[in-house]
Amino acid sequence: MVELLTGPVEVVGTGMLGTSVGLACRRVGLEVLLTDLSEEHVRTASGLGAGRPRRPGDRPQLVVVAVPPDHLGAAILDALETSGATVTDVGSVKTEPLRVAAASPVLERYVGGHPMAGSERSGPLAASAALFDGRPWAVTPHDTSDPGGVRLVEELAAACGGVAVRMTPEEHDHAVARTSHLPHLLAVLTAARLAGAPEEHLALSGQGVRDVTRVAGSDPAMWQQIVALNADALRGLLAEVREELDALQDAVIGGDRNALGALLARGVAGTRAIPGKHGAPLTPTRSVFVSVPDHPGELARLFADAGASDVNIEDVHIDHDPGRPVGLVELVVEEGRAEHLLGSLESRGWVTHR
Amino acid sequence: MVELLTGPVEVVGTGMLGTSVGLACRRVGLEVLLTDLSEEHVRTASGLGAGRPRRPGDRPQLVVVAVPPDHLGAAILDALETSGATVTDVGSVKTEPLRVAAASPVLERYVGGHPMAGSERSGPLAASAALFDGRPWAVTPHDTSDPGGVRLVEELAAACGGVAVRMTPEEHDHAVARTSHLPHLLAVLTAARLAGAPEEHLALSGQGVRDVTRVAGSDPAMWQQIVALNADALRGLLAEVREELDALQDAVIGGDRNALGALLARGVAGTRAIPGKHGAPLTPTRSVFVSVPDHPGELARLFADAGASDVNIEDVHIDHDPGRPVGLVELVVEEGRAEHLLGSLESRGWVTHR
Repeated sequence: MVELLTGPVEVVGTGMLGTSVGLACRRVGLEVLLTDLSEEHVRTASGLGAGRPRRPGDRPQLVVVAVPPDHLGAAILDALETSGATVTDVGSVKTEPLRVAAASPVLERYVGGHPMAGSERSGPLAASAALFDGRPWAVTPHDTSDPGGVRLVEELAAACGGVAVRMTPEEHDHAVARTSHLPHLLAVLTAARLAGAPEEHLALSGQGVRDVTRVAGSDPAMWQQIVALNADALRGLLAEVREELDALQDAVIGGDRNALGALLARGVAGTRAIPGKHGAPLTPTRSVFVSVPDHPGELARLFADAGASDVNIEDVHIDHDPGRPVGLVELVVEEGRAEHLLGSLESRGWVTHR
Repeated sequence: MVELLTGPVEVVGTGMLGTSVGLACRRVGLEVLLTDLSEEHVRTASGLGAGRPRRPGDRPQLVVVAVPPDHLGAAILDALETSGATVTDVGSVKTEPLRVAAASPVLERYVGGHPMAGSERSGPLAASAALFDGRPWAVTPHDTSDPGGVRLVEELAAACGGVAVRMTPEEHDHAVARTSHLPHLLAVLTAARLAGAPEEHLALSGQGVRDVTRVAGSDPAMWQQIVALNADALRGLLAEVREELDALQDAVIGGDRNALGALLARGVAGTRAIPGKHGAPLTPTRSVFVSVPDHPGELARLFADAGASDVNIEDVHIDHDPGRPVGLVELVVEEGRAEHLLGSLESRGWVTHR
C-alpha cells in the first residue's frame, strides 16, 4: 500500500535502470523528473514516457540516483546537498558508495537500494516499466537513516512492482557477492577457456556450457567496476572457492571418488537452495517436448491447444535448426501436470516426446 | 545418405540414451534389437516403440553400447566377443573404455562414438526419437578401426538426425573436458556456495546464478564416473583455472582494475567462440519483451501475431508470477529483425518493452 510516497520522484541518470524506474513510477501515476549529464538521454527517456526534464524550482519528494557504480557515491552526495528530499539509489554495491556519501552532514536522508532486475542491456531504449515486477528490491538503510525515508524507499519498490527485502549494506554486499558477483566470475573463468580453443573442441559445445557462460558476455566495463567495488565481500568467497578447487584437483588427480561425490552432492544441494523465480519455494517442473512443423501458425496452434488443456506453461524453449523441417519445442510445466498436458496434446495430433 | 547401414541395430542398455537411439533408428525404418540387464527396461523400451527384445540367433549389423560409464569398457569387450558386428558406444569419455576394450583380439571392429545430446533426465521413459536432431555426434575411431565400421557409425549418427564430427579418442576427451566437464565442475563450485547460505542472501538470487548453476543439479553419481574417467584431460584445464583464479584473487585484493578488465574481456571472447546451436556461426539475437495478460488464449494470440510478422522466434522465456495479472514474455529473435517485430506487435495492440 502506497501511503507516504506521493511524488514527485526525481531520477538522476536516465540509463536502462533509471529510465525503467521512471516508466514504472509513471505507470502508477507518480510525477517523475529526469536528470542526466546527457540532455539527449533525458530527451529519449522523456519521449518514452518516463517523465519530464527537471526544472529549477522543482521539489522532488524522493531522488533515485541511477548512475554507474564508480560515480554513485559522489552523485548521492550531490543529491543530498542540492535537495531536501530523501535520496536512494539502485546500485549493485552498497557499502562503498555509502562510505563516500558519509561525508554528508545530512546522511540520514540517504537510504540505499538495489533492485535485482536484469541489466545485460543498457541505455534508455532498453528500459521497461515491467522490469522490476515480482523481483526482489534490496533496501539497505544504514545506522542513521531516517525511518520515514526507509518507508518511502520501500514504497518506491512496491510502486515499481518489486518486493522490498530489507538488510544492512554489509549483508547486501555479501549476499550479491555470493549470488551474483562470484557466479559471474566463475562463468568468466569457464568462458575464458573457450577463447582460442581448437575448433573441434568447440564443435562439441552443448546446452550446458552455454548456460554456464551466458552471463560472461555482459558488459565488462560495468563488471570491472562492480567487482572492484565489492572486493571486500568477494575476498572470502574467492578463498573458499580456491580451497575447494584445490581439493577438487587433488580428488581428480588421486582418483578419490568419495571426495568427488561429496563435492557434486554439495552442488546439487546448492541448486535446490535457490528460491523460485518470485521468492516462492521452487515448484518441481518437468519438460514436455513437442515436434512442431516449421509452417506458419503451427506454434500458435500449439499454444492454443496447450491453453485448452488448462495446464500453465512456466517456460518455453525452442530448439530450431533452420535446415530441418521440424523444430522441437520444450514446454516447462509443473511436474504433476505434465502427463495431463501430454495426453491433451497427443489427443490433438501432436507428436510428443518425454 | 545411408548406404551401408541396413540394420539390424542392437542397443545394449535401454536407458535414456539407448532407448533414444532405438527410437531414432525405428523412425527411419531400421530394425532394432534391445538388450539390457533389466528385462523390465527392455519391455518398457520395446513398448515405447524403440525395438524388440533381442533373441538368440539374431545377427545385428551394428551394436550400440549404451551402459553407464563405469561398465562401458567391459560391455564393449563383451559385445565384440559375442557378435561379429561392428561395435560402437555413446559414452561421455572415450579413451578409458578404449583402454579396457583393447584387450580384445578383434578391436578393429570397435569405433567409439558420443552424441552430444541432453541427458539430465534418465531411464527409457525419458527417451526421445528427436533427441539427436541437429546435434553433434562425435565419431572417434582408433588406429586400427576398420574403415567400413567407421562409415557405419557415421551413417548411424546421420540416421539418428545427428551431425557426425570425426576426431581421435584423445581429442574428444580433451574437447569435452573443456566444453562440458570443466563447465560442470565450475557450476558445482558456484552452487556449493549456496547450500546452507543465509536466507537473505538467497533472497536476492537472479537469473544469472540460475543459469550458471543449472547443470550442477544433474545426477551426481553419473558425473562422479565421468569426471573420474576423464581425469587426465581435466588435469591441465583445472591447473589453468587454478592459475587464473590466483591471478583474479590478486587483482581483486590489490584493486588491479586492468588485470580484472583483461580477464573479463577474455570471458566475453569465450562466449563469442561458442558456435550457434547447430554448428552455424552465432547469429546475434535480441530480446523483445511483451506484456501478456493472464487470460486463456492470450499466449496463442501473441504467437499468431508474431507469426504474421514473419519474424522467426529463436527462443522464448516466460516470466510469470501467478500473483500478477500480467506476465512478461521474452521473444528472442535475430537482432536485425527485432524492430520489425516490435512495430508489428505494437500495431496489433501489444504492450512491448525494449
